[in-house]
Amino acid sequence: MRQITDISQLKEAIRQYQSEGKSIGFVPTMGFLHEGHLTLADKARQENDAVVMSIFVNPAQFGPNEDFEAYPRDIERDAGLADNAGVDILFTPSAHDMYPGEKNVTIRVERRTDVLCGRSREGHFDGVAIVLTKLFNLVQPTRAYFGLKDAQQVAVVDGLISDFFMDIELVAVDTVREEDGLAKSSRNVYLTAEERKEAPKLYRALQTSAELIRAGERDPEAVIKAAKEIIETTSGTIDYVELYSYPKLEPADKMEGKVILAVAVAFSKARLIDNIIIDIREMERI
Amino acid sequence: MRQITDISQLKEAIRQYQSEGKSIGFVPTMGFLHEGHLTLADKARQENDAVVMSIFVNPAQFGPNEDFEAYPRDIERDAGLADNAGVDILFTPSAHDMYPGEKNVTIRVERRTDVLCGRSREGHFDGVAIVLTKLFNLVQPTRAYFGLKDAQQVAVVDGLISDFFMDIELVAVDTVREEDGLAKSSRNVYLTAEERKEAPKLYRALQTSAELIRAGERDPEAVIKAAKEIIETTSGTIDYVELYSYPKLEPADKMEGKVILAVAVAFSKARLIDNIIIDIREMERI
Repeated sequence: MRQITDISQLKEAIRQYQSEGKSIGFVPTMGFLHEGHLTLADKARQENDAVVMSIFVNPAQFGPNEDFEAYPRDIERDAGLADNAGVDILFTPSAHDMYPGEKNVTIRVERRTDVLCGRSREGHFDGVAIVLTKLFNLVQPTRAYFGLKDAQQVAVVDGLISDFFMDIELVAVDTVREEDGLAKSSRNVYLTAEERKEAPKLYRALQTSAELIRAGERDPEAVIKAAKEIIETTSGTIDYVELYSYPKLEPADKMEGKVILAVAVAFSKARLIDNIIIDIREMERI
Repeated sequence: MRQITDISQLKEAIRQYQSEGKSIGFVPTMGFLHEGHLTLADKARQENDAVVMSIFVNPAQFGPNEDFEAYPRDIERDAGLADNAGVDILFTPSAHDMYPGEKNVTIRVERRTDVLCGRSREGHFDGVAIVLTKLFNLVQPTRAYFGLKDAQQVAVVDGLISDFFMDIELVAVDTVREEDGLAKSSRNVYLTAEERKEAPKLYRALQTSAELIRAGERDPEAVIKAAKEIIETTSGTIDYVELYSYPKLEPADKMEGKVILAVAVAFSKARLIDNIIIDIREMERI
């Protein structure tokens, strides 16, 4: 694995891949890698000739009250993990190189952002869209890999790629789970022993609601209520349980096409999120 | 020459060029081609293996009071001219294909827009940036060609390409002029015979000011005044005579690096623009 910090060196390496006709799988991250990231790298490894992973803690996607400085960083450990996962190039640019001088142009994400976690993170997805546009143009990937744990981010990236006709295949990868169903997250370690026992109920709630839909339920309120009832048996506080069309994230009153049921629950020291995406057409076909 | 309207057919043709390792020169236009466009195509022809020209009257760059519907269109005539100029692919997409559905993301040009013609065209360059981002991603050009007649547009495109790390060489092509120095423009036909005789004074004014700088003048006001005095001997009304750094379009008080002196003059039925870009360093080196 090569670790590249310099933008012109990255460009040179990408040109080399292109001249050899190699497909490029790209896994953009903010580092502090966990199993979720490595699953993305794995899949990229299987589907492409070369794998590029970026580690860049993007200042533009942190709000004024979100602690950019305190975001955990451990490049050395990350480099070892990325190497083991079969990454060919680990791109670790500096903030100065990614944002040189004053901005001439900015991107605003107009849709898919005012729901779920985006509602309380004004400007977050604008920052995500800007940095991904830069990274996509530098890496010129054949495929880009994102985890469905952050399904809203996947929806925003889908909008970015399709609006701008980017020549990139977006690969959305299923959430990696513990054996009991709890979505893997670096935040799980902040759960108390008691909370850890309750936490799998988030996914059980999502599954129960999906079961209801499968059984024919088409009233969004009833679907949401069923999930809430299960989550309310935990000690956590519900931030939201919401149902939308996917990936447009519009009201799912009609319950057709794909829908997403997403939850955010605050425990004493960890706020957990999870979601399930259900394809209504597929269910009706069965 | 192939005329392509369908986006997926264009992508297929571009992929073909890329697999053959061909460089692509791109000339984006709004059609109703004149000698300026053909000069761009000529240069693209000389410098690349393949030439793609687009003709797309972009609704997003027209203001509410600017007549998008009345913008002149003559695709048949344009196709003949493009073919003669050695264009390989003439891309003529529909507005529906370029802007399908509602926008998920928009681009805002934050700099280089609130001066010169941009001052009175709120949102114009946002529309230019959006459509060029789409076209660049579709055509994936090695080089993109723009005329310096609209030097502000060149400056905005320069900002777009550099901010987003687009892998494109921006080629700015000198303004094509009549023998008497008048910048070629489809609007020149709206000049009366009397105005047509006066119009070359715009360029003469620019040249005179450039001469002053060459002679050592470093006071922007003095440079602007000299140009104004000449233009005021015409029957036209000065809209602006302005001097900025180039391509940043910031105040040129220091008169260093590249500067642009630009004019806009309203005649009875035509508003003419012209500009001259002066490299102060080059002058000092001589």
